[in-house]
Amino acid sequence: MADYQLTKEVMHVGEMASGAELTVPVYRFKGQTDAPSVYIQANMHGAEVQGNAVIYQLLEQLRNLKILGDITLVPYANPVGCNHKNGEYTLGRFDPITGVNWNRMYHFNEALIQPIVEQYLDSTEQEIEAAFKQALLDDIIDQLDHNIYGLTTGQRIAYQLQKLAHQADFVLDLHTGPISSKHLYCPEYAKASASFFNIEHTILIPNDFAGALDEATFCPWWSLTEAFAKKGRTLNVNKESFTVELGSQEQIDLDVALDDAKSILTYLQYKGVIAGSEFVPETMTRYACYLEHYKAFYSPMGGMVDYLAEFGKPLAAGEPLVRILRMDNYGDGDALHYISLDKEVIPILHFASASVNQGTELYKVFSEFFEL
Amino acid sequence: MADYQLTKEVMHVGEMASGAELTVPVYRFKGQTDAPSVYIQANMHGAEVQGNAVIYQLLEQLRNLKILGDITLVPYANPVGCNHKNGEYTLGRFDPITGVNWNRMYHFNEALIQPIVEQYLDSTEQEIEAAFKQALLDDIIDQLDHNIYGLTTGQRIAYQLQKLAHQADFVLDLHTGPISSKHLYCPEYAKASASFFNIEHTILIPNDFAGALDEATFCPWWSLTEAFAKKGRTLNVNKESFTVELGSQEQIDLDVALDDAKSILTYLQYKGVIAGSEFVPETMTRYACYLEHYKAFYSPMGGMVDYLAEFGKPLAAGEPLVRILRMDNYGDGDALHYISLDKEVIPILHFASASVNQGTELYKVFSEFFEL
Amino acid sequence: MADYQLTKEVMHVGEMASGAELTVPVYRFKGQTDAPSVYIQANMHGAEVQGNAVIYQLLEQLRNLKILGDITLVPYANPVGCNHKNGEYTLGRFDPITGVNWNRMYHFNEALIQPIVEQYLDSTEQEIEAAFKQALLDDIIDQLDHNIYGLTTGQRIAYQLQKLAHQADFVLDLHTGPISSKHLYCPEYAKASASFFNIEHTILIPNDFAGALDEATFCPWWSLTEAFAKKGRTLNVNKESFTVELGSQEQIDLDVALDDAKSILTYLQYKGVIAGSEFVPETMTRYACYLEHYKAFYSPMGGMVDYLAEFGKPLAAGEPLVRILRMDNYGDGDALHYISLDKEVIPILHFASASVNQGTELYKVFSEFFEL
Amino acid sequence: MADYQLTKEVMHVGEMASGAELTVPVYRFKGQTDAPSVYIQANMHGAEVQGNAVIYQLLEQLRNLKILGDITLVPYANPVGCNHKNGEYTLGRFDPITGVNWNRMYHFNEALIQPIVEQYLDSTEQEIEAAFKQALLDDIIDQLDHNIYGLTTGQRIAYQLQKLAHQADFVLDLHTGPISSKHLYCPEYAKASASFFNIEHTILIPNDFAGALDEATFCPWWSLTEAFAKKGRTLNVNKESFTVELGSQEQIDLDVALDDAKSILTYLQYKGVIAGSEFVPETMTRYACYLEHYKAFYSPMGGMVDYLAEFGKPLAAGEPLVRILRMDNYGDGDALHYISLDKEVIPILHFASASVNQGTELYKVFSEFFEL
Repeated sequence: MADYQLTKEVMHVGEMASGAELTVPVYRFKGQTDAPSVYIQANMHGAEVQGNAVIYQLLEQLRNLKILGDITLVPYANPVGCNHKNGEYTLGRFDPITGVNWNRMYHFNEALIQPIVEQYLDSTEQEIEAAFKQALLDDIIDQLDHNIYGLTTGQRIAYQLQKLAHQADFVLDLHTGPISSKHLYCPEYAKASASFFNIEHTILIPNDFAGALDEATFCPWWSLTEAFAKKGRTLNVNKESFTVELGSQEQIDLDVALDDAKSILTYLQYKGVIAGSEFVPETMTRYACYLEHYKAFYSPMGGMVDYLAEFGKPLAAGEPLVRILRMDNYGDGDALHYISLDKEVIPILHFASASVNQGTELYKVFSEFFEL
Repeated sequence: MADYQLTKEVMHVGEMASGAELTVPVYRFKGQTDAPSVYIQANMHGAEVQGNAVIYQLLEQLRNLKILGDITLVPYANPVGCNHKNGEYTLGRFDPITGVNWNRMYHFNEALIQPIVEQYLDSTEQEIEAAFKQALLDDIIDQLDHNIYGLTTGQRIAYQLQKLAHQADFVLDLHTGPISSKHLYCPEYAKASASFFNIEHTILIPNDFAGALDEATFCPWWSLTEAFAKKGRTLNVNKESFTVELGSQEQIDLDVALDDAKSILTYLQYKGVIAGSEFVPETMTRYACYLEHYKAFYSPMGGMVDYLAEFGKPLAAGEPLVRILRMDNYGDGDALHYISLDKEVIPILHFASASVNQGTELYKVFSEFFEL
Repeated sequence: MADYQLTKEVMHVGEMASGAELTVPVYRFKGQTDAPSVYIQANMHGAEVQGNAVIYQLLEQLRNLKILGDITLVPYANPVGCNHKNGEYTLGRFDPITGVNWNRMYHFNEALIQPIVEQYLDSTEQEIEAAFKQALLDDIIDQLDHNIYGLTTGQRIAYQLQKLAHQADFVLDLHTGPISSKHLYCPEYAKASASFFNIEHTILIPNDFAGALDEATFCPWWSLTEAFAKKGRTLNVNKESFTVELGSQEQIDLDVALDDAKSILTYLQYKGVIAGSEFVPETMTRYACYLEHYKAFYSPMGGMVDYLAEFGKPLAAGEPLVRILRMDNYGDGDALHYISLDKEVIPILHFASASVNQGTELYKVFSEFFEL
Repeated sequence: MADYQLTKEVMHVGEMASGAELTVPVYRFKGQTDAPSVYIQANMHGAEVQGNAVIYQLLEQLRNLKILGDITLVPYANPVGCNHKNGEYTLGRFDPITGVNWNRMYHFNEALIQPIVEQYLDSTEQEIEAAFKQALLDDIIDQLDHNIYGLTTGQRIAYQLQKLAHQADFVLDLHTGPISSKHLYCPEYAKASASFFNIEHTILIPNDFAGALDEATFCPWWSLTEAFAKKGRTLNVNKESFTVELGSQEQIDLDVALDDAKSILTYLQYKGVIAGSEFVPETMTRYACYLEHYKAFYSPMGGMVDYLAEFGKPLAAGEPLVRILRMDNYGDGDALHYISLDKEVIPILHFASASVNQGTELYKVFSEFFEL
């Protein structure tokens, strides 16, 4: 078919002590129309590699699809995290020097909102959107280039990715959990879109900026919409951002990646980024909960954990999540402890190791969940 | 002399995967009067060990002093960080599992303020203070004991230390920088006290809670005072908290520790926690700046750093902070780069290693500084 | 039944910077006869935790069995490695300060052999065995107590465990691979015993000391036998040591642990440590290869690995072990690489992470294997 | 002057998971005569960066000197170690995945010796040298290129450096200690050369291969000489290798580096690699000891260490090396412990952190030392 135009660029995002350049590959399909555009990145957290395989399968699929809007794909988004091993595993969730989570370094400048509202109160939606998009881009470029005290290593990477993301209408940040089922972080207002992904569990997130890419790209638009609403004007901006959690970290599976690529293509087709009607969302019970009810459960004790609760299914109150072995107590104490919650939850992911300290996050669970 | 009563307790603050108990030693002198009390802890960050030596010297000194108020001293405050090595160095600034800074896990519940204001608007200062102190204690105990999803490892440690700290009038949290001169974090309202420490550089911090122990113990009282002020009532609460930065990490020096102990005793004598007039603050030029002007300067490039700027003295605009070696550029580029700022600053500390990435924090400096 | 006597001791093996004691629990059943004895330890490598669960199940089973020889069981053998996390995973294969593998620090003093040969050339086997056992014990105690320059952290732990191990006739050191099938390290001369474990793959190891516990406990006896043989005397010493690899690291499964416990009990019953005939080895094809043919295959390139080869089954020459994704090459190079060997092998284990550098150990395989 | 010819090459030594290339810069001066050649590398251990600054100063000096033999200089020899941080420090002494010391991965194939002896017993020294040099090169190239199971990451780096080193007559591997005075590792037979370095302390090492670069380059020649000697022929091969320990890790100082560069130039001038008589070794008392008497002293207890013993000066028996603080024992035990040896030693270096476990290497010392 070959009615596509794939280009590749290598983006410089930093340098190491030896002078080694930190680079990120950027793939772009030019859309054939002015349909909405999408930005997709993977592997911001070093161990969360499955997204790279999904981008591989997306590229393979897209070469045979009719592409209407621009599509930008960035695998290996974080060249520091991607290559940082300690022992056999990839220590890639936070900057090893500072401890700051690589996905908490994006930028949101609330001060950009009010001037747009004031200047464009009576403009067309198209004008408002263009102006605000430009303001977001100018601001991020300003952060990158004009800061006498400089930027942290992580900010420099994040801001350059964000510069790409701000140019798109839809943003998908591909992550994974530690040992995890698939789940989706979705802004509350975009709830309707969640059903186009083949993902059973969705976390609905509010308009609070905590530094992640999805927030950094949808919070400005949500805030803008609210600011216009206060002035009595309803905006219908078609901007959405999702964090797509693809399963477990430290592994890639190209066959599963093809399924995930199709799930994403279903969303892109629904949004008109690609043409056709080939992709139909799978029928499944989709559960959701609000972010405040997506709970981390911290271990009440140290020990060795046999994880019992299955992912994705409601677990009745009192049913054990784990049993914890404490061999030091054998003979003069309890060597085996069954731990449960006294309310119904859906387990979504659990910790990556059997060895936990008192206070290690054991499971993350949906509480107060409902069908989407 | 021996008119003291020193007691020791071992506080259990957690347990590891093997079941090994995490414990913290707590030393207490019972004051002979109802003079104000002080809480002093050290080594919350694993590599910042000099505070333990200072507590040693404080104990040695206090045995021969007249103690009026209760004094609680906690060395080795963080048994996880203290023992966590990676390579030869102590990786103790953040939880190695989560990356969260150990000194950003304390607790401040703003919701406690308003009920006190309403209930005690016309009470005596003593009653207000007693009620609020109890509220702070009840709240932290509640956090420790009644949380169905549990606490993180760091919160459990921090909250138990905070429970001790809330019982004192003055709080000193002993830290160090990486490679660093001595400096003091001081709440803006307690500026007058800064001159009783033998420390040349003071950072004045506002009433913003960012999770540190000093903030967790003075912000509630500052907020309470402000809330009463809004109701037209001026409170004079005598509560102060400081983070005392004792110099460089990864080293102890018992002789220097004796000097630092005397500096602290000077403050305690000024505050009436100990009797006498033995301790007189040293005469020195004391510089201060506001927290917003205490700047981290991030490396504009990767390389190997020869740190040139001396600590503690104003450095003229344009004078080099560092020269950075880039051997990979020798012969076909610039191998040596001199880096400066275009404004006058006082360098306070620098990074612990010569090897830096682009974006690594090189120096922290006072800008917009003034004499105290 | 309760005709057992289980005792528990807490052995002190070191102390951390904070003064925290490093301890190891030691469980002992006193045998009812002078039948041979066994020493079983687990978790010398921090992430290899399944052995603790196996010891749990062994203890549960042994309480209801007739115990003829002394049985010593040591879970959590390495209190440093067990608790050492970096990121979510346990960095427990080597001392984090020095990089030395915890299982390469045991002791073997060849100089002990010759004096025994000379002094006991004409003694009974019982006398020889008693004398050499005592020499091994005296030597290890001497290492522990009389060394003016001291011992490393790991040596101190290892030697104390070895002191226990030298008192037993049979030694089982419970380990796991990274992501792994079950397999057994067995001294060449004890090949017949391998068939009593329910483990399909056995590596036959020569009389070379490389620092591991199994070697440290069988090499002395093997060397002694050879030294007597040179003098024309054949010794029949009934001493065996195995490293039992229980599967994958970073997980425990109590149900699988029960199977593994029964596998070990089958060996113990065969050796007469426990009474009865309850335990029968499972029928299975058992493959073996010599240590020199147990090959690590290092990645010929960096990339993200989709591990394809199944464990435990012969893989034909030319069949892919892995496919390696290299997204940086998409579009202008090969993004997907299938890697194979040109000889038949049996894959036994693979690396724990999908992300590998050029030169990371991808798989360990049996080459030149044969049926046992 | 410019009678030099400096060339630069970028050598590819591996690739990371992201595909990022690992490269090493190689600088070469072509000698004007067939005088002996030298190979100098730095920073094989990631934190030991001062050698890069020394190579910088060597390059600056050499541009103005008359160069007779070929000179190859390799800074940043290990691109993995150089950039590997954990916390603020560089974890660069061992491969973070395997724990193997980067300077224990070089190659020595004893099997090369005997064929040369047999084939060249009656050849000229020049022929023997040429033949053996070629054999060493062929062997290392064979290891790099023809190994069906591949090489580890560290071997691939080491072997490529070794390929460069085997082409030179003299090899200098620039290292540092943790916190350390300058010292020199020198093969016993090259003792006379030690006095041409401005370094007060020399460790004389035997003909044992333990994996380091100096050993990998001098042991073959020493072994060859010994093998010829057994056949009654005395060879006078002019091959020397040194590990030069430049002081402390994690820091560079360009001024000190200039001194060290001059020290190395003194040796090169003595060996005829450069012309002239400009460089004269400094007059100083030079101490030496044999490797077996270069002792690591392991901490007899955990605690916080105040390092007392000065480097480089004989310390009398019974004089304290350290005092160790144990705040957990204050009040009910000994809080302060003075530790000494009961024999005279010269302290050379000490551990990098105040926090030590029982068994951490506190100091390395010369025992049984003598004047060179």
